Amino acid sequence: MENEEIRKDKFESYVVVHNIAKRHNVGTLARSATAFGVAELILVGRRDFNAFGSHGSTSHLRFRHFHSLSLACSYLKERDFDICGVEITETAMAVNEHPFRKSTAFLLGNEGTGLSAKECEICDFFVYIPQYGGGTASLNVTVAASIVLHHYAVWAGFSERTREGNKFLVAEKPANQMRRKYCTDTAEAIAEERKLKKENAANGFFNESGKDEASSNLLDALFDS
Amino acid sequence: MENEEIRKDKFESYVVVHNIAKRHNVGTLARSATAFGVAELILVGRRDFNAFGSHGSTSHLRFRHFHSLSLACSYLKERDFDICGVEITETAMAVNEHPFRKSTAFLLGNEGTGLSAKECEICDFFVYIPQYGGGTASLNVTVAASIVLHHYAVWAGFSERTREGNKFLVAEKPANQMRRKYCTDTAEAIAEERKLKKENAANGFFNESGKDEASSNLLDALFDS
Repeated sequence: MENEEIRKDKFESYVVVHNIAKRHNVGTLARSATAFGVAELILVGRRDFNAFGSHGSTSHLRFRHFHSLSLACSYLKERDFDICGVEITETAMAVNEHPFRKSTAFLLGNEGTGLSAKECEICDFFVYIPQYGGGTASLNVTVAASIVLHHYAVWAGFSERTREGNKFLVAEKPANQMRRKYCTDTAEAIAEERKLKKENAANGFFNESGKDEASSNLLDALFDS
Repeated sequence: MENEEIRKDKFESYVVVHNIAKRHNVGTLARSATAFGVAELILVGRRDFNAFGSHGSTSHLRFRHFHSLSLACSYLKERDFDICGVEITETAMAVNEHPFRKSTAFLLGNEGTGLSAKECEICDFFVYIPQYGGGTASLNVTVAASIVLHHYAVWAGFSERTREGNKFLVAEKPANQMRRKYCTDTAEAIAEERKLKKENAANGFFNESGKDEASSNLLDALFDS
């Protein structure tokens, strides 16, 4: 019922990442996701990632985790979301043509291999980003995702964020940061959340300072402030 | 005269980067630039950069170097290019509104500080990328550049690259790679090119294997294949 209310007002976008490569830079992806009004970042399978590069934006994004793709799919279908694969397939439509219909979850492939057959199966449709030069077979996955999320936000008519000088205004960090990160509603999910918190703390995830990284200077150089 | 010919057929886009931060990831930028049909990547001031993340695309892109911003500006004005600053300014237009008129060079700021007053002075107009969430003040500079270059390519009607399976076809590497990288036409420029080649070789630039990097595994993890 609550979701019915939301959909009447506006569309929502989610991002789904399946078995993300360890240490993959989810940070930059999270930064783009929050910039383009993404409501939820869903990790399927592996959930250990490096938040470096997010510039604090992981605290403004709702994270959710599923053990399998079919569980994630059920969750999205219950909420009447389209699942859109970001992949160059035969039937894929150019993203700038805005082939969207309603609230949409964007499924991102790994770089290199792209979306697997199993991942493609749960997609309602596909979008791709047209390329014009012969120098590269594909785009960096965060770049591709950002372009898609940008177009979706334009299509959905999300309200533009207030600017101040030459920056967009950053919201205050939510008071209860962990609650925002793991939005849960069942006893099982709450147990899952506690387990995740513990694991994250043990592994130093969401540590965006990079201070514990032996290689922090190299990382700083790559993702300069 | 030659340029007159080119302009009759189609528009061109260039990317201009001024005093790029050392080790900044020009590689990913080059990968996006070649995907979106950029003809030339112009480095002003510092020219020492790391091509890692380009996936070989630096060999498909023409590089040019100028010692000062005013020299770069003269070069672009001689070719009747608009200079478009990618920056959130008062007069900046949303990039999805396609406020383009002709061949355009896009001037990118450093992350954090953005475009300086001196850099803004040479710009004919500005574009920005609308943001919709409160989680980040700005986008990663390569992400921002990619979105802008994508929109320009759509506006200019560049010919879309042939696809094969779920990848875009990659062109063969030019036989004389260095000639393509430093397109030169004056004796002074040729001397400059020789100097650059020597410096690049000494510094290991355009070494995309990352094998000489002590931290190559970390880089591999960040920019996975």
